[in-house]
Amino acid sequence: MSDLRAEAEALDGKDELAAKREEFVLDETVYLDGNSLGALPANVPRRLAEVMTHEWGELRIRSWSESGWWTAPERIGDRIAPLVGAAPGQIVVGDSTSVNVFKALVAAVRIARDPGNPSGGRDEIVVDATTFPTDGYIAESAARLTGCRLIPVAPGDVPGVLGDRTAAVLLNHADYRTGRLHDLPGLTAAVHAAGAPVVWDLCHTAGALPVGLDEHGVDLAVGCTYKYLNGGPGSPAYLYVREALQPRFDSPLPGWNSHAEPFGMRAEFEAADGALRGRVGTPDILSMLALEASLDAWDGVSIDAVRAKSLALTDFFLRCVGAYVPTGRVESLTPAAHAERGSQVALRCEGAGDVMRRLIEQGVVGDFRAPDVLRFGFTPLYVSFGDAERAARILARTLA
Amino acid sequence: MSDLRAEAEALDGKDELAAKREEFVLDETVYLDGNSLGALPANVPRRLAEVMTHEWGELRIRSWSESGWWTAPERIGDRIAPLVGAAPGQIVVGDSTSVNVFKALVAAVRIARDPGNPSGGRDEIVVDATTFPTDGYIAESAARLTGCRLIPVAPGDVPGVLGDRTAAVLLNHADYRTGRLHDLPGLTAAVHAAGAPVVWDLCHTAGALPVGLDEHGVDLAVGCTYKYLNGGPGSPAYLYVREALQPRFDSPLPGWNSHAEPFGMRAEFEAADGALRGRVGTPDILSMLALEASLDAWDGVSIDAVRAKSLALTDFFLRCVGAYVPTGRVESLTPAAHAERGSQVALRCEGAGDVMRRLIEQGVVGDFRAPDVLRFGFTPLYVSFGDAERAARILARTLA
Repeated sequence: MSDLRAEAEALDGKDELAAKREEFVLDETVYLDGNSLGALPANVPRRLAEVMTHEWGELRIRSWSESGWWTAPERIGDRIAPLVGAAPGQIVVGDSTSVNVFKALVAAVRIARDPGNPSGGRDEIVVDATTFPTDGYIAESAARLTGCRLIPVAPGDVPGVLGDRTAAVLLNHADYRTGRLHDLPGLTAAVHAAGAPVVWDLCHTAGALPVGLDEHGVDLAVGCTYKYLNGGPGSPAYLYVREALQPRFDSPLPGWNSHAEPFGMRAEFEAADGALRGRVGTPDILSMLALEASLDAWDGVSIDAVRAKSLALTDFFLRCVGAYVPTGRVESLTPAAHAERGSQVALRCEGAGDVMRRLIEQGVVGDFRAPDVLRFGFTPLYVSFGDAERAARILARTLA
Repeated sequence: MSDLRAEAEALDGKDELAAKREEFVLDETVYLDGNSLGALPANVPRRLAEVMTHEWGELRIRSWSESGWWTAPERIGDRIAPLVGAAPGQIVVGDSTSVNVFKALVAAVRIARDPGNPSGGRDEIVVDATTFPTDGYIAESAARLTGCRLIPVAPGDVPGVLGDRTAAVLLNHADYRTGRLHDLPGLTAAVHAAGAPVVWDLCHTAGALPVGLDEHGVDLAVGCTYKYLNGGPGSPAYLYVREALQPRFDSPLPGWNSHAEPFGMRAEFEAADGALRGRVGTPDILSMLALEASLDAWDGVSIDAVRAKSLALTDFFLRCVGAYVPTGRVESLTPAAHAERGSQVALRCEGAGDVMRRLIEQGVVGDFRAPDVLRFGFTPLYVSFGDAERAARILARTLA
């Protein structure tokens, strides 16, 4: 056995999260695509069968109250809250990430322009130019509908474009392509110094590392739940609205679920108090309760322990790649510095599309991002050091 | 046995849809709330178990292509299309009804203002003043974001307010409270005569009666799938965009799923062709595939047969109520004329909230709409004439 294989065994032996792997349905595949679709938590099928046969099949309409369907968006929001450093009452689950970006960004512009805010004339939305595309498209729509100009810049250049015309800023906590972690505390403070609110997209960090929404004074945040949170394909996204801003959260999607009295069936809209303002229409119960069950995997897990394992895994994988893969065949796009690294490793590689196809055939599942990136996600709850070593070894063999 | 019980038995005996009841999970309850949440189709739990354990659990990320997840929104849209009189390629499934109302209404205003449209100055959105509240709230938001004024009027008064300032009209095919069916062909023609597009909300008619979207030249339509379509609690809604208007459908929610090349990850938005423009973010697969399975119940069913049974059921129920319930205790708000009736019966009744509670205790499930309405929905696929007679009989006993 090679030194690195022995080291992987030793690391797995002392991994305090190792037992969590048993809570997921996994096979001999090395699954490094949990940053795209998290693996199936083993308890989900049983729970959803109960929802279908008992709650829907037998109780039917009564389940909206008796089975707690109606309150699921805020109840599940409160389960996600500790994973992103939020006190209860600030997160609701529902809709897609794109729809939540729209709610958050339009609401942010309205907050910036609140009559109580002394700085008028705010007509610029700043957006991460390297963002996952949907955020940019939605930002453009939000700008068009609110009479703003869109300013796309690299995250590091954001402070230089902020000013008293800034209406809102939309940033990603980690770059989906390179895995680079952006400076959430520093950029949030810079946006605040310009008198504007900031919206953070947490898709690529929630469940992989501490986010600290409350601690860093983030205004609004959104994220999906099907990556490191393992909620299932296309499971509902979430929206965080900082408690102090909730009274001024003026949603562009004021559905009956965000009404102060939803069953009053009143013609006039009156927003509910609190995070409920982020709700819109009838919640998608099957997907939502699958997500709720999937969150059981986080019981007793510290997000700091998750972060420590994530960094150890990506460090170890990069070491294995360095040791096994011939020099010059791949180049890491993922920052070496821990403070700048999310929970994935992106390797630039000639013929990456073909290489990834061959890796998948050999049971190592990552993904390909055009034009030349191999992307490997490390989900600390179920990826082992043995997985990391094996993936690097098979990558080296594939490139040989 | 009373004459009406014997008649119910005879009617059930010759009901060509009677066998469909076996495809749903039902018990001795008389379930007349399918216009709020349709009953569970018996095949759904098995299908969703397969989606979870095989497609998510084993294939994981591969299922986006190999299990057809990516194309589910348009594939399922095409399954719904014949039920609402639409040719394929015009419906996508996804998001809530509220979110789809927003997409449709903002897009309608943009169509009305299209540079190629000679009538400028269109700045009024006309909305059904008796609408289910969420449509009104969303219409108000759409008006605010597009610089329009909202004109709420009773559906019958719509023609009188139309003119060259009309930017778009949002109407319900049936009134959620009274069950009154509105004149979709006539109102659509009136809106078109004013040079504006119309958006129809089909929540209370799709799956209960023929809608004829293509035949009547409807521009845009939305609807939920959890009422007469039995898709499950909060199952995804759908959006219809008439083929001829698709090139001008300019969505306010342009997510990566509506991009011409979604995996190109391009910074610039370029809308996909066709109905795909109505997609937004990652589709909610568990709920969506439960809906797809639920639509199997429509195999071999003619919507005209459904309509015929629906009218026969509501006629028969009203006759039983007339025969059993002491005069003056209830008053039907549902039009007697077939052309004006949806698939529900609304009875005004003193103490309706308490009466419905007692009905439910006795196994007759309808719902209560404040302040004084008992609402009974008749889903032709699984409600029998025996159910209708029993509901009326127990209502009479409750009011005695």
